[in-house]
Amino acid sequence: MTGAEERAGGGTAGLPGPTAVLPGLSDEQVRALRRVGRAWGRVSSPPEVWHRALPVEPDLGAFPARAEAGSAWFGRLVPLSPLRARSLSGRRAVEPAAGAGSGAEAGAGAVPADAGTAGAGAGGTVRRLLLGAPLASSAFVTERMRKLVALPVLSADALSSVAYGPEAMITVLVLAGAAGLAYSFPVAAVIVFLMLAVGVSYRQTIRAYPHGGGSYIVAGENLGPTAGLVAAAGLMTDYVLTVAVSIASGVAAITSALPGLVPWTVPLGVLVVVVLLAGNLRGIRQAGALFAAPTYAFVIAMFALIGAGLVDAAETGFRPVAPPALPVTETVGLLLITRAFSSGATAMTGIEAISNAVPAFRPVEWRNARTTLSWMVGLLIAMFAGIVVLIHLTGVVPHSQETVLSQLAHLSFGGGWMYVYIQAATAAVLLLAANTAYNDFPRVLSLLARDDYAPKTFLRLGDRLAYSRSIVLLSLAAALVYIAFEGRTDALIPLYAVGVFLAFTLSQSGMVVHWWRRRDPHWRKSLVFNAVGAVLSGLVLLTAGVSKFTSGAWVALIAVLLFLLVTTRIRSHYTAARAYLRLRPHAVELPARTGAGPLAPATPAGGPPARREAKKAKEAEEAEVIPGEIHHLSVVAVATLDLAGMRTLAYAASLGQPALAVHISTTEDEQRRFRAYWSLWGDHLPLQTVLSPYRAVVAPLVHYIETLHRLNPELTLTVILPEIVTRHRRHQFLHSRTAARLRRALRHLPKIVITTVPFHLP
Amino acid sequence: MTGAEERAGGGTAGLPGPTAVLPGLSDEQVRALRRVGRAWGRVSSPPEVWHRALPVEPDLGAFPARAEAGSAWFGRLVPLSPLRARSLSGRRAVEPAAGAGSGAEAGAGAVPADAGTAGAGAGGTVRRLLLGAPLASSAFVTERMRKLVALPVLSADALSSVAYGPEAMITVLVLAGAAGLAYSFPVAAVIVFLMLAVGVSYRQTIRAYPHGGGSYIVAGENLGPTAGLVAAAGLMTDYVLTVAVSIASGVAAITSALPGLVPWTVPLGVLVVVVLLAGNLRGIRQAGALFAAPTYAFVIAMFALIGAGLVDAAETGFRPVAPPALPVTETVGLLLITRAFSSGATAMTGIEAISNAVPAFRPVEWRNARTTLSWMVGLLIAMFAGIVVLIHLTGVVPHSQETVLSQLAHLSFGGGWMYVYIQAATAAVLLLAANTAYNDFPRVLSLLARDDYAPKTFLRLGDRLAYSRSIVLLSLAAALVYIAFEGRTDALIPLYAVGVFLAFTLSQSGMVVHWWRRRDPHWRKSLVFNAVGAVLSGLVLLTAGVSKFTSGAWVALIAVLLFLLVTTRIRSHYTAARAYLRLRPHAVELPARTGAGPLAPATPAGGPPARREAKKAKEAEEAEVIPGEIHHLSVVAVATLDLAGMRTLAYAASLGQPALAVHISTTEDEQRRFRAYWSLWGDHLPLQTVLSPYRAVVAPLVHYIETLHRLNPELTLTVILPEIVTRHRRHQFLHSRTAARLRRALRHLPKIVITTVPFHLP
Repeated sequence: MTGAEERAGGGTAGLPGPTAVLPGLSDEQVRALRRVGRAWGRVSSPPEVWHRALPVEPDLGAFPARAEAGSAWFGRLVPLSPLRARSLSGRRAVEPAAGAGSGAEAGAGAVPADAGTAGAGAGGTVRRLLLGAPLASSAFVTERMRKLVALPVLSADALSSVAYGPEAMITVLVLAGAAGLAYSFPVAAVIVFLMLAVGVSYRQTIRAYPHGGGSYIVAGENLGPTAGLVAAAGLMTDYVLTVAVSIASGVAAITSALPGLVPWTVPLGVLVVVVLLAGNLRGIRQAGALFAAPTYAFVIAMFALIGAGLVDAAETGFRPVAPPALPVTETVGLLLITRAFSSGATAMTGIEAISNAVPAFRPVEWRNARTTLSWMVGLLIAMFAGIVVLIHLTGVVPHSQETVLSQLAHLSFGGGWMYVYIQAATAAVLLLAANTAYNDFPRVLSLLARDDYAPKTFLRLGDRLAYSRSIVLLSLAAALVYIAFEGRTDALIPLYAVGVFLAFTLSQSGMVVHWWRRRDPHWRKSLVFNAVGAVLSGLVLLTAGVSKFTSGAWVALIAVLLFLLVTTRIRSHYTAARAYLRLRPHAVELPARTGAGPLAPATPAGGPPARREAKKAKEAEEAEVIPGEIHHLSVVAVATLDLAGMRTLAYAASLGQPALAVHISTTEDEQRRFRAYWSLWGDHLPLQTVLSPYRAVVAPLVHYIETLHRLNPELTLTVILPEIVTRHRRHQFLHSRTAARLRRALRHLPKIVITTVPFHLP
Repeated sequence: MTGAEERAGGGTAGLPGPTAVLPGLSDEQVRALRRVGRAWGRVSSPPEVWHRALPVEPDLGAFPARAEAGSAWFGRLVPLSPLRARSLSGRRAVEPAAGAGSGAEAGAGAVPADAGTAGAGAGGTVRRLLLGAPLASSAFVTERMRKLVALPVLSADALSSVAYGPEAMITVLVLAGAAGLAYSFPVAAVIVFLMLAVGVSYRQTIRAYPHGGGSYIVAGENLGPTAGLVAAAGLMTDYVLTVAVSIASGVAAITSALPGLVPWTVPLGVLVVVVLLAGNLRGIRQAGALFAAPTYAFVIAMFALIGAGLVDAAETGFRPVAPPALPVTETVGLLLITRAFSSGATAMTGIEAISNAVPAFRPVEWRNARTTLSWMVGLLIAMFAGIVVLIHLTGVVPHSQETVLSQLAHLSFGGGWMYVYIQAATAAVLLLAANTAYNDFPRVLSLLARDDYAPKTFLRLGDRLAYSRSIVLLSLAAALVYIAFEGRTDALIPLYAVGVFLAFTLSQSGMVVHWWRRRDPHWRKSLVFNAVGAVLSGLVLLTAGVSKFTSGAWVALIAVLLFLLVTTRIRSHYTAARAYLRLRPHAVELPARTGAGPLAPATPAGGPPARREAKKAKEAEEAEVIPGEIHHLSVVAVATLDLAGMRTLAYAASLGQPALAVHISTTEDEQRRFRAYWSLWGDHLPLQTVLSPYRAVVAPLVHYIETLHRLNPELTLTVILPEIVTRHRRHQFLHSRTAARLRRALRHLPKIVITTVPFHLP
């Protein structure tokens, strides 16, 4: 990540800080800035003289330094002051300081606590009720989790995977009947070993990357930016699918208990996405407190289920019940076994969540994260193995209307309250497992944005210190996938493994390179652990990609490729844009000024004609950074000589720069008439009328301005347009939209500044 | 229509001219303009001194005075020169005059012949191929029709009505079986009398209103504006339904011949709307030439059908064939008869078209229009009566799969070429009858717009001299109605009569008042004719409204009421806006200037504090029309000190007005850093940094500016924003949208001018 830290703007490597949106200047840029400043000082008078004395006191006070959020529910509501123009007319006047000379108090008093942009007033109130009061940037660091909260929040994904992982494995094996089911123990054993290996591997990562070592960072730093990007692609598809699969499986747990809800599968899932969206927009800590209970409830439920099952089995001497005779459609072979393996391996998804989120732990972060990871892997292996054993003992097989867990619970507890508790806990943990993705998706996306691979807007922290836009994006993508696959877990599973194990493999290969380069104490042991993890993950990736290619993995592959394409193109755009926006030294090489006194800085086209011609080429660029380089011409587009038109003319004239009025006539009569009005008025500004025989207004005006620019590339043309603004938007269509259309048409012409003089109808 | 003519801008009463969009000033406004000009002269130096010598020669030549459209198909294509910014980079340079002092030639040469706005390049070429070359405004008057062209164009609606009118009448009567059908002659006789009466009545209107006496004008002038508006409401619903009913009936003629097309009824109808849309955007004369043939073909077809039928009947001694025994669901009664009557009266729709379109005739317009009307009524009565007689003789009854005309043609000609010809001609005339509405709808709408009842945009003639926007609106509305009623003629008929006869009744009542007031020679005769027409139309209106209320007339009534509501609200908005936009005399009462020399007109907040306070209240309004009244403060919103930011600062400084930079910081670190950069640069402009602890940018900036305005209402704040413009629109989302959002947020604040300084990425 060369250069990334410089631009991180106050954040850590794992998590860009609030100021990453506005990165600092490089040394070269600072030098250029100084030179520009000196040149500005040379061509103009000192600041005190240069800009006339300001007619105002610019300091209007500051925003309140801290959010006045109480701890009670309604205490969260900071009073809102609406920002709309409507508030100006009457009612809300500036009471204390309006008459006084200084407006400092008034400004501070009226500053809105709601800094959101979506809309103040009623909408803002609803927003606050749902999301809580805004959080100040200074609260950023304190939003940390302790282990007992972090465990459920960050491991909900991994632990809940046992609700679908074993079932997915058995679903494949059962295709070969009893012969296939005989392989359930060996395949499960390999998966357990894999869990252990990957878990140990990620412990190394947490130690080496205490600031958060997501696959993107680890792969990027050690294997190169492209590998990092591929890992990020894997992660992003993974997160979207985590949300979709978890919700699908959670809804299945509900419909297993309440079959009447089966037709509502899709709406139920979308509802869950909406709840997750709202919950996550509130921010991390709230999410943690809210989401801790279900995970613990699920762990208790699973151990109760496994315990009860084992007690039952002990009564019959652990003699497995034979599974029902099922149609055998496939024979046992390598392909079947590998498919079962890669399906079962989805139980490992989410195991990396903790290593991504190390900075969200309380200090000492890496130590707490590592302990939490060990707890999680232990719980995961115990629950996974227990469920597989239980399936073997009871002879339960997958069923399209009821999940395996539901069948097991029915066997052990009948339909009583324990069954209800198990289903409810499973549903809750699965629905909330999706939350892990909500913690990580925005982090990865903000890192990508910091490194120019994603739009900078994803760097922007919302007023609740959550990456609001990423959260919305994830919700949309997940809802789309969920709806497209009609919420069927078995259809989503094949897409899932590819992204997960792509990220796993690259991350752990990166760690191998890391240890090899660093050679810290004990580097050999760590390297071996990571190498084992990398090889195993790579094998799963290969297995999943090949054996499930036709049944859905191709979708994930295409998503990854598209992601790579889009991110690299975004980066190349940003790189070009940054190079172009850099302050350039040439701007300083302005010749010593010839012309009027210090109070007339904008002498039009200063200097003799020869030099003027030479400067033309250079000045056709938009690179003037010194007032003396700018030669003005204001062009006022005037249609009627009403109050709005006259006010615009007066505005243009009062700027004290050369100005010109242009009028488009559709007939010669109208042209004559307008000229007559102009001389009646007194001919105070030069007027150019253009006859547009085809009655268009925008095109001839744009063409006139374009030609003016081409003939005088050294001029900066300020096009001044009157615009009538109606009080209600529904009335706006009753007025000419010429100003808006002109603005759009002129937007792409170089060196043309567009000024709108609004005229507000009451 | 008091005051309407003044604002008509060069057009006739029947048809606003091309300049109606820009109406002239009233005497009072001209006086105000003069006074403002004198005040401007008093406070500023004479024009020569006041605005510095222009750095350019503003005259860049004119648009070509005439369209270079040839008569050949491809000759219509005027070469296009694209107007986009892209054209500037390379290829199209300004060859001859770029170096010379005057750019007149260059400007004229590069002026695009295509003045359309929708998009030049490929889109423009397609547009030209479909619609023809643009027509100059001077061609407006010459777009006239001679009688033999006007007859088919304007009477297609009326004549084609016989395709559904008789059938609609019989459809109702047959509900009472043979007893009901016995009333077909009496009802038809009343309708024929009505046709005659209304026809004679409209002859009077044409004579009295040689500039086009549509129901809107006649009712408005004689019965008051509200009556005119009600008549317009009737007309507008009528035109929309004319299109829908004609197309439905025309498609039925096609599906009668080709029953396989029945499932395609709706798409076929929509296709016809699209064809009509394109045809009419080309303009009137082309439409006339294109649409003359089908009407004549239809007239010939009908007379052939009636003739053949009568010959057949003569062979059997004119003994009517008994109609098939049908289930009798109703008894003969007043309600049944009136319903049959009002259904049959739809055969009269379109009879008013000629009187609306008098100015489209060649001179002497009224005489030609009158003659054409007589021809049309004669043809209409002959065809209507013939068809009714034929139905009686053959005993044909309506059938859901086949139209009555198709059945009659089958009886007379079997399935041979004559049958095909009759069906084709019927379909063609019906599909083109809709075209009458395309001639009239835009006219009425432009009159409404002229009188402030409709958005002014409907006054705008497209570059083919057609009211493009009205044509598009009509097409949309008709397509919507057609789709909503699934193209079923019988479902649309009940909606139809209300609008038509509402307009008829008001128009003819208006004529009665007209004659009564004027007392021209022969006024008594004319008055009687019109009174008879008015009473009969009123009876039909009443009959249709009452007897068909539940079966669809209520929809038409609601449409009329909605229309009245919307148009009156539009007018009240325009009235208020015009009053507010009027130049006000108070602007002149500026005190004699105190302050600097004539070259510094924009002295900030001139005058001693006391007077300044007094002026504050007045100047808080947006009513400054004299440069000296405007006190500037430029506020530059600057986020980063890159090329775009520095250029914006230089622009603001070079204006020579007091300027101030505002920066929004999200953290205190960032704030300190930015201030440090600012002093490195040299502190050339006053800087205000605002700390936004909730990370919003737009809201604090808007609030700052709003507070600044409230504390200094006498200042005109120019908010200057840098805006990065990408070459491709798809890249725009990668850059901050702050400028656009700020512009939207600031738009509603008073006295705030918004200037965007675009910076174009290559």
